[in-house]
Amino acid sequence: MTLVESDRADDRSDAIAILQRCERKLDREDHSYRFAISGSPGVGKSTFIEALGMQAIKAGHKVGVLTIDPSSSISHGSILGDKSRMTQLSNSQEAFIRSTGAGDVLGGLGRRSMELMTLLSAAGYNLILLETVGVGQSEHTTWQFTDGFVLVIQPGAGDELQGIKRGITELADIVVVNKADSDLVQLAKIAKAQYQTALHFFSSTREGWIPKILTCSSIENVGIDDAWEALRLYIAYLDQQQTKKQDRVRQKLNWLTWSIRLTAQELMTRHPAIQQKMEAGKNEIKLEPSTAFNIEFEIENLMHDLLHSTDSPAKPT
Amino acid sequence: MTLVESDRADDRSDAIAILQRCERKLDREDHSYRFAISGSPGVGKSTFIEALGMQAIKAGHKVGVLTIDPSSSISHGSILGDKSRMTQLSNSQEAFIRSTGAGDVLGGLGRRSMELMTLLSAAGYNLILLETVGVGQSEHTTWQFTDGFVLVIQPGAGDELQGIKRGITELADIVVVNKADSDLVQLAKIAKAQYQTALHFFSSTREGWIPKILTCSSIENVGIDDAWEALRLYIAYLDQQQTKKQDRVRQKLNWLTWSIRLTAQELMTRHPAIQQKMEAGKNEIKLEPSTAFNIEFEIENLMHDLLHSTDSPAKPT
Repeated sequence: MTLVESDRADDRSDAIAILQRCERKLDREDHSYRFAISGSPGVGKSTFIEALGMQAIKAGHKVGVLTIDPSSSISHGSILGDKSRMTQLSNSQEAFIRSTGAGDVLGGLGRRSMELMTLLSAAGYNLILLETVGVGQSEHTTWQFTDGFVLVIQPGAGDELQGIKRGITELADIVVVNKADSDLVQLAKIAKAQYQTALHFFSSTREGWIPKILTCSSIENVGIDDAWEALRLYIAYLDQQQTKKQDRVRQKLNWLTWSIRLTAQELMTRHPAIQQKMEAGKNEIKLEPSTAFNIEFEIENLMHDLLHSTDSPAKPT
Repeated sequence: MTLVESDRADDRSDAIAILQRCERKLDREDHSYRFAISGSPGVGKSTFIEALGMQAIKAGHKVGVLTIDPSSSISHGSILGDKSRMTQLSNSQEAFIRSTGAGDVLGGLGRRSMELMTLLSAAGYNLILLETVGVGQSEHTTWQFTDGFVLVIQPGAGDELQGIKRGITELADIVVVNKADSDLVQLAKIAKAQYQTALHFFSSTREGWIPKILTCSSIENVGIDDAWEALRLYIAYLDQQQTKKQDRVRQKLNWLTWSIRLTAQELMTRHPAIQQKMEAGKNEIKLEPSTAFNIEFEIENLMHDLLHSTDSPAKPT
């Protein structure tokens, strides 16, 4: 996993070789079900993953978890590692937890989440839970890479249904109203009812599946059996569809588009001519701030030139 | 604004000319204060902006608002425009609201937010409120472009303080616990107390400013005067610092880095050789899914070749 997440050029071809071996194995038999566990910060995703994962292990599954390590964007120091947040799961022989530092998170998910899911699946983890943080856009990205989408919300947010939440809610196969404990039990029930009503207005994204909605308390371990039952039903639905091969192809195509966009950005901004022009431009802005938009335009044109100075497609590699 | 947000190549140079004229004016005198209004979806940012904006207008300000239009990421249909969400502000002569469609939002803010802030400032809007959605990364981006950072949270999330919220909270100059109404009044007070305690542990990002924290109900218009008072104090602090010129330069440099990265991505992925290779690669993946990671590697190498086939820096434009 460290090799696959490495940025070093000489690690890349080794990583690719391992990944292709795993992919060949998975092409023959892939028993994994991959779920995105998504929601705003603070809704209790980690606690939910811990509780759900333990339930899945009891049902005989091997659980692979990809989480985002909560760390500061300024100091880059993480306060609590995910292993200390998910104590039960991390002590279980049937689970594997991999944390990606928030610094390597792009648009709400890890840069190499897809590759890590491949490794986990090939290693026999058949229930994969991919934690995502974010809003519409990043949730949509993650949705494209996974088999099922679990949206975790907290009570008291239901009144915002008409707003931006729609973009997220209509992706959800299962909606979990977490924190249905102490003062929030009543509000959780209201939120559930509101989402239940709202779901009628959304066009379902999967044919033949009606999104499930439920309340639970991950901390008090109440309602986690309902959540697992919803996942189990969804897995049964997937099995019945018999579309895993097509699903994996679609997910890989989506992942390719996403990944290539990020690579493009990295390579271009590291090009010596661009870097040189950037440095010069920054100095100019310091002297004459009103030139900023002009300088951006000039760099844009330089990028154009760099890319189009080669008329014929590059030689095969 | 439409010109500045346009993607058309022949609009770009006109847009740049207008922007530079505005920038020259602002270099002479810039009376604008630019605030990021940030928070997870559902915390009531729009309602808060509406209430705060009206309060600022009463105090003699002209208010420019840049919002994100809540729209579906699948159907691309927005349910409610921001003008219908901010009815009072949009009817005021002293306010200007510009909505960016969620489809044009990258990393939690609009692609051309910086440029739009320049236009608003040059047009005399001296209080600029820039709505941002997202998690650590995007909030950090927005923080780099603005003079002050207002974090809006909702009650009941305080227990997650140790987690991912830190990355956001330490950016905040003002923390607003919104929705302090009906069932949530007590929880709002608890959240305020928890954040107040937590703020002691954060290294302040601005010398000489102690972050303010307050509760309010935007819907019931309670506590909005406190919120405005906090902004007023922060503006007084900014005036006292007398660093606006340096601040604007720093913000422009940050914006240049961010903007150029996105441009790099757009130009590279639209290059004919890359597009051709992408199409061929996608077809190969459909036939032989296990080649996906290999194909990504090949495209990466092609990008390398395209950029480095020109040995000398490109000719000046």
